Amino acid sequence: MRFISGTSFGGVSEQQFTLGEIPGVLWTPEGATGTRPLILLGHGGGEHKKAPHIVVRARRFVAECGFAVVAVDVPAHGDRPKEEEYDRIATENQARADAGEELAPLIAGFQALVARQTVPEWRAVLDAVQELDYVGPGPAGYWGVCLGCGLGVPFVAAEPRVRAAVLGLGGALASAEAAARITVPVEFLLQWDDERVPRAQGLALFDAFASAEKTLHANPGGHGDIPAFELDSTLRFFARHLG
Amino acid sequence: MRFISGTSFGGVSEQQFTLGEIPGVLWTPEGATGTRPLILLGHGGGEHKKAPHIVVRARRFVAECGFAVVAVDVPAHGDRPKEEEYDRIATENQARADAGEELAPLIAGFQALVARQTVPEWRAVLDAVQELDYVGPGPAGYWGVCLGCGLGVPFVAAEPRVRAAVLGLGGALASAEAAARITVPVEFLLQWDDERVPRAQGLALFDAFASAEKTLHANPGGHGDIPAFELDSTLRFFARHLG
Repeated sequence: MRFISGTSFGGVSEQQFTLGEIPGVLWTPEGATGTRPLILLGHGGGEHKKAPHIVVRARRFVAECGFAVVAVDVPAHGDRPKEEEYDRIATENQARADAGEELAPLIAGFQALVARQTVPEWRAVLDAVQELDYVGPGPAGYWGVCLGCGLGVPFVAAEPRVRAAVLGLGGALASAEAAARITVPVEFLLQWDDERVPRAQGLALFDAFASAEKTLHANPGGHGDIPAFELDSTLRFFARHLG
Repeated sequence: MRFISGTSFGGVSEQQFTLGEIPGVLWTPEGATGTRPLILLGHGGGEHKKAPHIVVRARRFVAECGFAVVAVDVPAHGDRPKEEEYDRIATENQARADAGEELAPLIAGFQALVARQTVPEWRAVLDAVQELDYVGPGPAGYWGVCLGCGLGVPFVAAEPRVRAAVLGLGGALASAEAAARITVPVEFLLQWDDERVPRAQGLALFDAFASAEKTLHANPGGHGDIPAFELDSTLRFFARHLG
């Protein structure tokens, strides 16, 4: 893990790093010492580790809960090089969707492919960040919607350090099998009029989690319209389970 | 409105009253003066105005938000006399359910009948309580699940003083028509494995609210298993909309 730049304001330190080929950002309380919970934030499709909503979330987790937060670029996103295979599949899927094919199964197949790469990458990120003495081996949480849900479900299913997860805007077709292996508390965000994930698919994914504590928060509006008050709820959810 | 007894502890004053034939309880901050938001709590079937969960909720709304809270007995519940017609219908419905008939339409019909009586009663309760100078004409909220949802939906639809409502454990069959006239913010509680309200009925009722801001909170478990953290959420919901 190599730190390449760092800034600090409002009590929150932000450091850019690379871990092998993976570019990432780590947010921690300024001057932090000792072990603390760590949240991994998964960005959406076409976004990157410093998408504005990711930065807002990260800063609030740090400032209000004292957590450490890390986000990394998904392959072919942000500061990472294009991947010919992914590009080819994305172009192909777009053409198939334009020709009237249902979008959800195409997204599902693509996310399953990328997850085979991101699950081990994200586990390596947890390993590296938790070796820092101001993060340490505390409990971990995961937050991700959309692509961050498609990649997050197999990650949360595979990684026992993750003790609570906020997921959403994903469907059963992509994720039900891995979701059935998740037993930690889940807060699941569903947009009632999601133009990308059919409502029944989202409800079926919520149904699939094996967690004894899982809570579905559904709100009106499209894929991008999660209301601001859900971030307050997310903070309380993680504070309750990791704090 | 006639007060018949009063106690006070932990900063919360509790007064029993009657308004005509309606027995009720009013909770307010001890020594309150001036106008404040008022929450009407609707109890469940077979319960009454001082059911333990009603008292817990009332005390928290008063202690943590400074609200006034009122609950009254539904006809044929608590301190109110039996109603032969309701008894006859309830017995008849039980027999039909025992004989294998679907429960939801039977409950729906019964609640519609009772609501014709409770909507004007509850409006009269708001009138009377808001004349007290330590409650006054502030915004009102409504909380009710199960029978409290079946009776609450037509009440919220009819009563413009109600600016926000927490409803749940109800279905579209009973309430969709009135729900489509509700435009205030709604937090809707659904139990994922509700043995009394089919899941699709609950989801369809959430769908029916005309509110621009409505949020569905679904949790695993049966009709009586709403998790404790939902009360925290309810408090924040009312604080956000009435506070």
